[in-house]
Parts: sequence; structure tokens; C-alpha cells
Amino acid sequence: MKNFKIRLFEIIEAAKDGDTPSKIFDIGIIILVILNVGLAIAETFTLTPGIKQLFYIIELVSTVIFSFEYICRLWTADLLYPQCKPCVARIKYAFSFMALIDLFAILPFYIPFVIKTDLQILRALKIVRLFRVFKINRYTSALSSIGEVFKKKKSQLISSVFVVSLLMVIASVLMYNLEHDAQPEVFKNAFSGLWWAVATLTTVGYGDVYPITSVGKVLSAFIAILGIALVAVPTGIISAGFMEAIESDKDEDEIKYCKYCGKKIE
Amino acid sequence: MKNFKIRLFEIIEAAKDGDTPSKIFDIGIIILVILNVGLAIAETFTLTPGIKQLFYIIELVSTVIFSFEYICRLWTADLLYPQCKPCVARIKYAFSFMALIDLFAILPFYIPFVIKTDLQILRALKIVRLFRVFKINRYTSALSSIGEVFKKKKSQLISSVFVVSLLMVIASVLMYNLEHDAQPEVFKNAFSGLWWAVATLTTVGYGDVYPITSVGKVLSAFIAILGIALVAVPTGIISAGFMEAIESDKDEDEIKYCKYCGKKIE
Amino acid sequence: MKNFKIRLFEIIEAAKDGDTPSKIFDIGIIILVILNVGLAIAETFTLTPGIKQLFYIIELVSTVIFSFEYICRLWTADLLYPQCKPCVARIKYAFSFMALIDLFAILPFYIPFVIKTDLQILRALKIVRLFRVFKINRYTSALSSIGEVFKKKKSQLISSVFVVSLLMVIASVLMYNLEHDAQPEVFKNAFSGLWWAVATLTTVGYGDVYPITSVGKVLSAFIAILGIALVAVPTGIISAGFMEAIESDKDEDEIKYCKYCGKKIE
Amino acid sequence: MKNFKIRLFEIIEAAKDGDTPSKIFDIGIIILVILNVGLAIAETFTLTPGIKQLFYIIELVSTVIFSFEYICRLWTADLLYPQCKPCVARIKYAFSFMALIDLFAILPFYIPFVIKTDLQILRALKIVRLFRVFKINRYTSALSSIGEVFKKKKSQLISSVFVVSLLMVIASVLMYNLEHDAQPEVFKNAFSGLWWAVATLTTVGYGDVYPITSVGKVLSAFIAILGIALVAVPTGIISAGFMEAIESDKDEDEIKYCKYCGKKIE
Repeated sequence: MKNFKIRLFEIIEAAKDGDTPSKIFDIGIIILVILNVGLAIAETFTLTPGIKQLFYIIELVSTVIFSFEYICRLWTADLLYPQCKPCVARIKYAFSFMALIDLFAILPFYIPFVIKTDLQILRALKIVRLFRVFKINRYTSALSSIGEVFKKKKSQLISSVFVVSLLMVIASVLMYNLEHDAQPEVFKNAFSGLWWAVATLTTVGYGDVYPITSVGKVLSAFIAILGIALVAVPTGIISAGFMEAIESDKDEDEIKYCKYCGKKIE
Repeated sequence: MKNFKIRLFEIIEAAKDGDTPSKIFDIGIIILVILNVGLAIAETFTLTPGIKQLFYIIELVSTVIFSFEYICRLWTADLLYPQCKPCVARIKYAFSFMALIDLFAILPFYIPFVIKTDLQILRALKIVRLFRVFKINRYTSALSSIGEVFKKKKSQLISSVFVVSLLMVIASVLMYNLEHDAQPEVFKNAFSGLWWAVATLTTVGYGDVYPITSVGKVLSAFIAILGIALVAVPTGIISAGFMEAIESDKDEDEIKYCKYCGKKIE
Repeated sequence: MKNFKIRLFEIIEAAKDGDTPSKIFDIGIIILVILNVGLAIAETFTLTPGIKQLFYIIELVSTVIFSFEYICRLWTADLLYPQCKPCVARIKYAFSFMALIDLFAILPFYIPFVIKTDLQILRALKIVRLFRVFKINRYTSALSSIGEVFKKKKSQLISSVFVVSLLMVIASVLMYNLEHDAQPEVFKNAFSGLWWAVATLTTVGYGDVYPITSVGKVLSAFIAILGIALVAVPTGIISAGFMEAIESDKDEDEIKYCKYCGKKIE
Repeated sequence: MKNFKIRLFEIIEAAKDGDTPSKIFDIGIIILVILNVGLAIAETFTLTPGIKQLFYIIELVSTVIFSFEYICRLWTADLLYPQCKPCVARIKYAFSFMALIDLFAILPFYIPFVIKTDLQILRALKIVRLFRVFKINRYTSALSSIGEVFKKKKSQLISSVFVVSLLMVIASVLMYNLEHDAQPEVFKNAFSGLWWAVATLTTVGYGDVYPITSVGKVLSAFIAILGIALVAVPTGIISAGFMEAIESDKDEDEIKYCKYCGKKIE
């Protein structure tokens, strides 16, 4: 039983090299996730009842598999955190980010069996399934280097987001006051101003909201130019982060020896 | 009395570790500032007289607190600049950037009591309250590393803004001359051209002003492509600035050895 | 015969310094490619029958030259891969990226002589000729340093494209669900949502598709701000790549000294 | 006479520290240039005859001053290139970039006195005056560090512009073929396609031209995403350039001495 549990744990975790059954399980889960995202997209198109039936069966099967996977993960959580007591380990796991996504991805399917809910709310809940895609992350290490740069530069990035937010709020209230009289339908309140500020500072510029008064245009130009500087900041932070990561990699590898005395060069 | 003044100075300045009353004061001010910005946003929506009354009371209370804070800061300014005479220190402080923001943030509330002013002007003045958000800066050190990069690269950044401005002016007059005859309503004067130049160079592109003649489109394409190069410049400058900051941090830690005697270079 | 083949190989390959006939051949091919791209553009305008005739002749002549070049390259492929058997070398070459482009660029001209095809399909096939421009690449080394940075950072760049794709898919389905009821004509299905997500995340913002509900606008603002962070990632990766390339060039030149014996480290 | 010429040369060149008359001359020219650019902008607004008269007088005076400056520069050109013969030095100077701008900036004013020209052409020629702003560059060294980075990275930047151009041409012809039948008025010919390609790749996105067919939208999405990668390239190149400039500055300054043996550390 214990060996079975350890084997099960090995299979559901990201596969080690040469562990074929575990690799098959990983790829199977990724395919199922992509299939479910595909379904969520396909469901937005008008469908024949036959295809709707097929989609329901695929969803049923995959939810059963995901539910089974969730239970297995919960059961083997004590192997993931060997330093904790089994029940503590399971509770700790149940509240981890990945476990919550797994739970939210299967929950919407079970809710209608328990409580009678309005269809509208059900549809909204079903979108949570989309977060299953983050499960792919668990099986891939490709993103780790990018993630590490973001983690290292977290405080600087949050600071710059904070400054941009301040700027947006000020700009939105200013713009509302400048433009409200000229186009009361477009700049109804500070929220409209915020929508304009986001579109301008991020340089998206949909073109549904823009100033028409001269003073408003001057402010808009000022915000657009400032937007470039503020876009440059996260780019600069992340560039520096990537450079740092490369340099620290190089520093670790580089062990050289002096060819005259044979000693290590530190 | 002197001890009380020193204690007051410690409290209104950014808190040191373990100084709980000072920390409470800092957090209180930040909450009050955010509340005031929230009010400025909320006032742009249609409100019931009851809520308007509530808002006025909140504004009244916070202005009294900010006024009291301003007076305390002015009084303890001689502790901030101990090398100056007390009265010189207070004048020096009163004209510092932060003190001016504090003053402009409380002034609009008192003006109607002194002079009879038009409501329109009053509303415009009230927006100045928004600048209170910069007070948050005083209590947070999170932005200092970003600010330092900007400060170090100031001359290069100003240079690039200057080049972009030149380019915008030339492009706007050129575009006016190319497009005025084709769409006299859209390109009324050089100011319309400048509005187009800002939207194009910053890649916002609202879509309210764009060339329709072939020559105008060629110029627009040229400006848009140049815009990318010009966006790249501040990004490059800031990236280099962040890298430099990281490297100078590392240089301080690094240990080097002399090639003649093999001893550590300190 | 063998000398002629070696000479031919030298001519069709990128010219070495001082090899004038090879240089003339290279420049001739580049001019012919540019001429053909010019034709493809010119053909989209309304033309007189006389000019159409002229265009056909230019196309005929250039296709004959490109066909001859293709045959020569295939014949001399055994000199390109001297380690392989002649026939293996030719097959290997025929399936290389550049040879396939060469083939696809000349094939559309010959197809109507072999099979009777619909004019519509023929027109589509003729666009393949445009890929001839990549032949210019063969004769220029200017892009190699940029290409190398992309090659080195391939896995990181693909990872970031993968994250952006995930985000776009999730955002598009979410936005469809939020906006479909408010504007069923604009957000018809998840595909419309994807079109919006691309326009927003890349900050293009055409302005044909944008949210009108408050919740939709909040999501759009969130995606637009996230878009900036995600644009910053490839820029950061590529910046770091260029820096690394410069540093590895410098490292080769740099001279270091051993801390024990003071001698130069080679 | 010779001393006067040397003094004149010193005055018209960028001022050395402490040379007050030269500094006054420099600032005077900059003010005059800015005034002229201001005039060019002001002329696009509807003016009263009185102001038009005033503008003409300002233009007359400044053109006389610029003409005199041009003649002085030409006369003292032999001091600029002391290694050349006087007449060779003058011809060499007359064809330098800055001298040509000076000439083109004054020429439009004299032309109507020589040849009878159409007013339309005259107006176009007058825009050349705008290029006088580049004269400011001569008196400021602020931009030199940015210019040097561009100069060093010239070949890489041109390469990336070349790739973007290739991509734009291919994308524009492809898009024309995909969208011409669906919206023949919008995608009239390859030029419309190119206009779309520029707006998409530079992420400006005015919103006047965008695909409406599904295949066109897929291509547009692909180009928009590729656009981000291509925007990242010049940014990366310029970032690396700025980093390199900082590092080479640091390498030159850093002369350290060993505190044990007193020898220079190389």
C-alpha cells in the first residue's frame, strides 16, 4: 500500500527522466486541459444539439479525471511535505495556489447537483475551468527563468505599477473636469476618465474616448508622453533582471585555474 | 518643551523601526490621503444631498488634520535643517517641493472664506487636493531606487524628450501643410498637426486624426517608425540605468587581488 | 568540368572579398528579387494591358533565371556538404529552408502549364514569390548578429509567447462572456474576444472592438496594463541577449592576473 | 584682420567656458531659431494683416542674420579645416550636413526675388525653415551621448529596419489579397496594405484600416504579435549600446593602486 502510494505520488508529480508512465500521465493531463480550453472557446459559437451532447460528455469525463487527480494529490500531500503531520500536510496543500485552481476548475461542475442555481451564474462559474491552463505550468519548467526575474524584481515592479496608478487617478479626475462640459456623454464621471487614462498610458488608444478641448488635448499629450517613460520603467527593470540572471549564472560556472601555479582563481 | 518638539518631529517624519506612535501617524496620513482621492473620484458621480453632506464633513476633518500637520512641520523645520537659523530653516522648508504640495492641498479649502470666488474656479482649485497623493511618497522608500535611476539619467532623458519635441514640431507643421487642403476640418492648424504627431509618435493612435493623402500617409509611416526608435531611447537609457545600479551594488561587494603582491585590494 | 563546377559553386555562394564575378552575380540576384517584389506590389494597382504585358515578360525572365539558379545550386550541393554522398547531399539541400523557398518561389509559374487551375488559387500561389526576398538574406551577413541573439534566447522567447497566448485565450473567453449580452454584434463569439485580446495586449487598439460594460472595461484595463509587462519581457530578454553578445566579445580580449603568482591568465 | 577672423571664428563656434560674447551669440541664434519655428506654427492659424506684417518683418530680420552667419561660417571655414587649402576648406564646409541645412533654411526667402514662382511651391519651400532647429544641436552637447550610441549600433539598427521593411511589404501584399474582395474601398491596392502594416507593426492602430475577414484577422494578429518582437529589437540594441557606453566610461576612469605594494592595478 505504501509503495503504491509512493508510486502514485511519483506519477502525478512532474516526471523524472526515464519514468515513462509518469510522462504519459503528464502529457495526458496537458492534452485534457487544452481540450477543455478548446471546448470553452467552441461553446461561444452556435452549436447543434448533437455537438452540445458531445461537449457535455467530454466535460463529464475530464471533470471525473480532474476530480480523481485532485483526490490523489490530496491523499499523497503528506509525501510532498514530509516534515508535517499527514493531516496538516493535506490542509497545507489544499490551500496552495495550484490546489485551489484545481478545486475551482472542478467545483462548477458539481454545484448544480448540490444547490439549484440560476443558469447565468453557472455560466460565469464555468469560465473558472479556463484556469486549468495554469496546470500546464506544473509540468513545464520553461517559464521558471522568466518567473524568477519577476520574483526578484517584484518590489520595483509593484512600485512602478503604484506610480502609474497614482498618475492614472490624477489624470482621470483632471480630464473629467476639463472635458465633462464639452462632451458630457463621453466623460460622464471619473470612471470614464480612468478608462481614457488606461487607454492613453498603455498606448492602446481605442479611439472611443479622447479629449476635444485644447486644454484636454495638452493634458492628453502630456500623459501620452509620460506613458512612454512609464512603459520604459518596467522594461528597464526586467532587462536589468535578465542581465543579472545571466551574470550570476556565469559567475557560478566560471571556475578557472592559473596555468603557472595551478591554483584556483577566485 | 524641547523634548516635546523633538518627539513631535520624530512622529511626523517617516517612522524608524520600533517607533509605533510614529508608524500609526504615518499610516493614518496615508489612509486620509487615499480617502480624499476617493472623494475626488466619487464627487464626479451624481450624489444625493446626504452623501454630499458626508463628503463635506470628511473633507473638513481631513483639511483640519492636514493644516495641523503643515503647521507642525513648519514649526519643527529647524530640526530638519539644524545647520540653518530657525527662521531661515522654516522659509527653506516652506519653499521645498513637498511643503508646497502640502500648502496647495489645503489652500483651496480656505480661499472661499477669505475671498468671494466663482464656483467654477473653486472646483478647478479643488483638484489640487489630488496632489496630496504625493505625500504618500514621503512615507515610503519603495520608489527611491526607481527615482535614483531617473535622477542619474536626467540629462540624457531630457535630451531625448527635446529631440522628440523637435521632431513633433517639424512633423506637425509638415503634416498641416500636406493635409490641410484635403481635410481642412481635421487639420485646422499646426495644433491639430501636433495632436496627430503626439498620437503617432507615442503609438497611441486614437484614430480621430490621421492623414488621407498619399504623401501624408508616407510621412505618417515615417514618423510612426521613427517613433519606435524614439521610444527605444528612453527605454534603453533606463535599462542601462537599472543595470548600472545593480553593478555598482555588486562592485561594493566584489573582492579583487593585486597582480604584483597577490594581496586583496580594498 | 570539375573546375567549372567549383567555380560555379563559388559564384552562386555569397562572394568572398575580391571575387568580382561572384559579387556581380550576388548583386544581380538581389536586384531581380527587389524587382519581383516591386512587381507584386504594382500588380495590385489597375494597369494598362501594355504594362501587364511588360510585367509578364519581366516575371518570365526572372523565373527562368531563378530556375537556372535553383538547378545550379542543386547540382553543386555535393560541394556544400562534402562529407555526404552526392545524391544524399542534393536531397539534403533540396529540403533545406532556403532551397524550399527557392522552389516555392518558382513553382507557381510552372503549375498552370502542368495542371489547369482556377485563377483564384493561382493568384494566391503567386504571393509565394514574395518569399524570394528572404534570398537576400543569403547574400548579407548584416542580420547574423541579430539572428544569433534570437537563437540564443529562443526558449525564453517561446515561453513568453506561450504565456501571452494563454492569457489571450483566457481574456478572450472572459470578455466574450462579459460583453456578449451588451453588444452581441461586436462580441459574436470567442474569436471576436481573441481579436480584441490581440489588439489590446499588443497595444495596437484599432478601436473596432472594445468593451462598453463597466466590468468589461475593468478587465480591459487590467489586460492593457498586463500587456505592457508582457511587452517588457521579450524586450528585456533581447536586451540581455545583446548585452551578453557584447560582453562575450569583450571577455575574449580581456586579460586577467592570478592572485597567487601574479602571472597572466590565458 | 587675421586676429579679427580668428575672433569671429571663436564667436560663431560653440562657446568655450568664460567666452561671454560667444555665449551671447550662441544663445541669440537659439532664440532666433525658436522664434522662427514659433512663426511657422503661428502662420497656420488665421491671422490679421497687422500680425502678418509683423511676422514678415521678423522673418526678414532673422533671414538677414542667418545669411550673415552663413557667410561668416563660409569665410572662416579654413580655420575649421586647417589641413586643407582655404578654397578646398570652404567647398568642403559648404557641402557638410550643417551648412546645407543653413543654406536650405535661408534660400526659400531669396528665391521669389530671383525667379517668379507659384505661391503653392513657395509655401512648401518655406517649411524647410523648420530644419533650422537642427542648428540648436550645434550649440548643445547634450545629445552627443545618445547620438554616439546610435552611431555605434548603426549597422544593427539598419538591419532591423530592413527586416521590418521586408515584413511590411510581404504583409501588405498578403493582406491586400485577403481583404480586397471583402472591403474593396478600404484595401484598394498594396499601398493601403502597407498603410495597414505600418499602423499594425508600430502598434499605432489608428483604426481607419483593419481586416474584417477571419483569415485577415489571423494574419493581423500574427503581424501585431511579431510587431512587438520587432519593437523589442531596436530597444534591445539601444539598451545594450547605452550599457556599453557606461562600461567603457568606467573602464577608462578606473585607475586603482594596490595599497600593499603601491603599484598600479591594470
